[in-house]
Amino acid sequence: MCGIVGVIGKKDTTEILLKGLEKLEYRGYDSAGIYVNDQAGHDYLVKEKGKISQLESAVGPEVQGMMGIGHTRWATHGAPSDVNAHPHVSQSGRFYLVHNGVINNYQEIKEQYLKGVNLVSSTDTEVAVQLIGVLVEDGGLDTESAFRKALSIIDGSYAFLLVDREEPDKLFVAKNKSPLLVGVGDGFNVVCSDALAMVAQTKDFVELHDGEMVIVTKDKIQLMDEQGNEVTRKPYHVNLDPSDISKGTYPYYMLKEIDEQPAVLRRLVQEYINEDGTFNFDPKLIDALKEADRLYIVAAGTSYHAGLVGKPIIEQIAQIPVEVELASEFGYHMPLLSKKPFFIYLSQSGETADSRQVLVETNKRGFPSLTLTNVEASTLSREADFTLLLKAGPEIAVASTKAYTAQITVETILAQALAVAKGLPSANDLDVKHQLGLAANGIQTIVDSKDDIEQLAHEFFANTRNAFYIGRGIDYWASLEAALKLKEVSYIQAEGFAAGELKHGTISLIEEGTPVAAIITDKETASHTRGNVQEVQARGAKTLKIVSEDLAQAGDQIIIPTLETVLSPLVSIVPTQLLAYYATLQRGYNVDQPRNLAKSVTVE
Amino acid sequence: MCGIVGVIGKKDTTEILLKGLEKLEYRGYDSAGIYVNDQAGHDYLVKEKGKISQLESAVGPEVQGMMGIGHTRWATHGAPSDVNAHPHVSQSGRFYLVHNGVINNYQEIKEQYLKGVNLVSSTDTEVAVQLIGVLVEDGGLDTESAFRKALSIIDGSYAFLLVDREEPDKLFVAKNKSPLLVGVGDGFNVVCSDALAMVAQTKDFVELHDGEMVIVTKDKIQLMDEQGNEVTRKPYHVNLDPSDISKGTYPYYMLKEIDEQPAVLRRLVQEYINEDGTFNFDPKLIDALKEADRLYIVAAGTSYHAGLVGKPIIEQIAQIPVEVELASEFGYHMPLLSKKPFFIYLSQSGETADSRQVLVETNKRGFPSLTLTNVEASTLSREADFTLLLKAGPEIAVASTKAYTAQITVETILAQALAVAKGLPSANDLDVKHQLGLAANGIQTIVDSKDDIEQLAHEFFANTRNAFYIGRGIDYWASLEAALKLKEVSYIQAEGFAAGELKHGTISLIEEGTPVAAIITDKETASHTRGNVQEVQARGAKTLKIVSEDLAQAGDQIIIPTLETVLSPLVSIVPTQLLAYYATLQRGYNVDQPRNLAKSVTVE
Repeated sequence: MCGIVGVIGKKDTTEILLKGLEKLEYRGYDSAGIYVNDQAGHDYLVKEKGKISQLESAVGPEVQGMMGIGHTRWATHGAPSDVNAHPHVSQSGRFYLVHNGVINNYQEIKEQYLKGVNLVSSTDTEVAVQLIGVLVEDGGLDTESAFRKALSIIDGSYAFLLVDREEPDKLFVAKNKSPLLVGVGDGFNVVCSDALAMVAQTKDFVELHDGEMVIVTKDKIQLMDEQGNEVTRKPYHVNLDPSDISKGTYPYYMLKEIDEQPAVLRRLVQEYINEDGTFNFDPKLIDALKEADRLYIVAAGTSYHAGLVGKPIIEQIAQIPVEVELASEFGYHMPLLSKKPFFIYLSQSGETADSRQVLVETNKRGFPSLTLTNVEASTLSREADFTLLLKAGPEIAVASTKAYTAQITVETILAQALAVAKGLPSANDLDVKHQLGLAANGIQTIVDSKDDIEQLAHEFFANTRNAFYIGRGIDYWASLEAALKLKEVSYIQAEGFAAGELKHGTISLIEEGTPVAAIITDKETASHTRGNVQEVQARGAKTLKIVSEDLAQAGDQIIIPTLETVLSPLVSIVPTQLLAYYATLQRGYNVDQPRNLAKSVTVE
Repeated sequence: MCGIVGVIGKKDTTEILLKGLEKLEYRGYDSAGIYVNDQAGHDYLVKEKGKISQLESAVGPEVQGMMGIGHTRWATHGAPSDVNAHPHVSQSGRFYLVHNGVINNYQEIKEQYLKGVNLVSSTDTEVAVQLIGVLVEDGGLDTESAFRKALSIIDGSYAFLLVDREEPDKLFVAKNKSPLLVGVGDGFNVVCSDALAMVAQTKDFVELHDGEMVIVTKDKIQLMDEQGNEVTRKPYHVNLDPSDISKGTYPYYMLKEIDEQPAVLRRLVQEYINEDGTFNFDPKLIDALKEADRLYIVAAGTSYHAGLVGKPIIEQIAQIPVEVELASEFGYHMPLLSKKPFFIYLSQSGETADSRQVLVETNKRGFPSLTLTNVEASTLSREADFTLLLKAGPEIAVASTKAYTAQITVETILAQALAVAKGLPSANDLDVKHQLGLAANGIQTIVDSKDDIEQLAHEFFANTRNAFYIGRGIDYWASLEAALKLKEVSYIQAEGFAAGELKHGTISLIEEGTPVAAIITDKETASHTRGNVQEVQARGAKTLKIVSEDLAQAGDQIIIPTLETVLSPLVSIVPTQLLAYYATLQRGYNVDQPRNLAKSVTVE
């Protein structure tokens, strides 16, 4: 979501902040801003609506200092604008604050504490910095106490970075639910919402826990719990290669990441399947899964769709019932659970706030859990009992591609390992390693035929305002993800639909020329889906068929390699990723940074 | 879906056919046609694209006869047009056929049997009548044998009504999966796909079973099984008051049916709750539910949405886990079931082919089942172990309204009866009768404030091309139905979304002026949904809030009465029904007969 950076004790503060914000830009980019203080009486606040490059142009050569904070924003409260950009300032001009998260009770705070204050923005964040100002200037508290008091008043999620102009040798830091790390340097320290932003400065980070507050100076990190008691915690070392974050010769990250999928699949096979065919999973994880009577997969967005595909894979291979739940729903409306539930969290970033909120709850109830994530030492990884890494390399494009196929791959291998551990007679029905090899080769074939798909994107999606993907069974789950991909980046109002359900209402939207793409990889229902294709054709729809080789007929436009049906989304999704990519370019949009969207969603 | 009528032995054949088709018109109306034979060497075929009124204008005074068949069509294969309209004719002009359903192997039949035939339409039906022609004229079979042979070749669903010009004293009838009834008259007989069409002629009907064939003459009904063995079956008596089918003073059925909801709720309370607070359900049904370890609700369209609301109601009140499944998906991809499943089928018409296909399968496996339907003696009702009627009166408008609230009402009372029977300590936490009384009164208040809602429909939906409904928990399930209603009749591309999930992708579709309606009835998540409303407002959305009284704030546009949270869709859905209704009229469409849609969907 939003990104936060801070640094203290470095001469090139401004440059470090701007470079850090650039790395975080893909997380959210309605607006950005920095505050820099030279610890000698001069300070600078620069904020701009739009991209980091616009902020960079607005920063003059005079903006230099020994400490500073910065922020890139994804609007939650108040429209994107200069005035709503962070850092926010208290009325007297003494306090500067950047914030990730959402303050739930900002209305109440305004009414109870800020009657005399003139709020200039429409953000919840300004309420926080004004509250601190009032507590210090009217309430007579020192800054540390006022900060702690403000935290006790605020109800919500936050990562805060606060500067007091009168104490410019300190950064005041606090965290609840939103991710925040303190990076340890030699004679300097940094703060950031993602290690990515500061990995050029240091690779050693201290994680903060919810409710903690920190005072950071250039050579000290003073960590405190909610009551103000000092806490000690060792830093951990991050393995991140800055070159992973480069686009190379690709025009866009999204295309690079689509192309990386065969390599990711092969890497996962090497990682989790040993030469002798046994599996490289923590035996305790397999034991815990064996004991469960039902698995609950919790996720959001594309990860949720990977979970939906995981359900039939795991049910078919490992013979255990699976429920797949939207994180934002499950947190507040947990259904009746089974006696021995096991929770699986899917999150590319490992920071999804909606999922984390469920994990906190299931941890409280003592349920075992596993996180499948692409980011080592991410919050969901640290807080779950087990972690499996997706090994996909950093996914920078906002629209997730390789993380989706990686999640399905890990679900598949894990299901097979579980089947073997349970001694199921069916355990060897499916040669998972062979199938995943076929999938990797299959994806390669599809990405090699990019030109044809670019042509089809032009024909079907370049000028439409809406579109449908339909399918049955496993093809339905793939259709949901295909539609989301198209939606996210091309702004076409696409919907994924169960092919048989369309006629129960939504078919009224089909008119002359409406594009309807059908995914057909399931022998059992192929003729029924083709029947539904006929239905929409009869109403004028332009139909595009994505069909596996063994079921192909004359006139089908995209033929994909045949896999075991339940694994087909590994290949069927790839043409739809490319269709979304090309349609977006044809429509003239930036495919890596769709409007309104942020990479890792760290608010609820 | 499509409607079929036939009559033999009456002088006013043409009028009976046309009146019958009018009654069926709401089932599908791309095109219509009749064939009439005077049994004295003259016959007439009239087909027209469009509504029945267009067919009526095309029928001249000379079109009179003693037997005939008619059809109103909802296109599945081939666009709506005169040539694709039924009845279809064999090449020599001897055989006439009307058909409901879908022939899966029509391509194969064409290639194998019809090489020498010039097909004039692009329908699957024509293949059937040409096949019969070939079997008689080239194969030397008599008509009855040829019909039986054709049925054995055809793979798919069908209700067939066949005429042989050379035997005009007979109607040849057959059925598989698509509904078909034979009505018994005095000196005449009729055939129809829905009793509604012929209730003015007779109230006594013989139901046909899958695979059966019938030869109907004016005074005999010869029923045969697949092997040609004669079968006897008594007719049943239908209770249908023709005046229920009138619009009265209402401009449209949809508005009439929205307004009837308080009366339906009260009727259901009287029907299923006795004066002394006990429940009027078959004790065997309650016993069967008590024995189940998990309930599976199977449905499609609006009924599916009523099932989604039923899940938390039943789980909360009766403490039994519930899964809700799309009928078209469940039939082919049944997940791992619990040890003692109990199936509940929701279908307004009781004829939904997708649901019926699942019921056939669960019957085969011996699982107990209940159908909640509005239509007595409908297929799903006859074939399930138990039936509960919705008592909503005929629902004529294609977009379902009162059946939705009726389904939720019956689910609620049934859940409470089950809780009492199980002796749950929580059984009396919720005064269901009182809550349903509140709901009936609450709906009355809402429908009484139609003018305000008409105004809001104009402001938000009269000119938009897309829209969103959002909510959390129970409000999410209501949002899905609210969006479907808007979609079905107004052709606005509306989507229902979990409020917290929107930001995981779909929020990229929000632009300046996009209407987003939020339903807020749940205290626990109200502030979070309001946060999501802020998020979309920050991106330019025009927001409409539908909020229960106890959670209302200044600026909320539609305030609805407060119910127990889990029951809130009974009232929260009503303003959304009215918004859809008015927006459709403002956009200039026929709200009762949306394009492409049919009332009861009798194909898969």
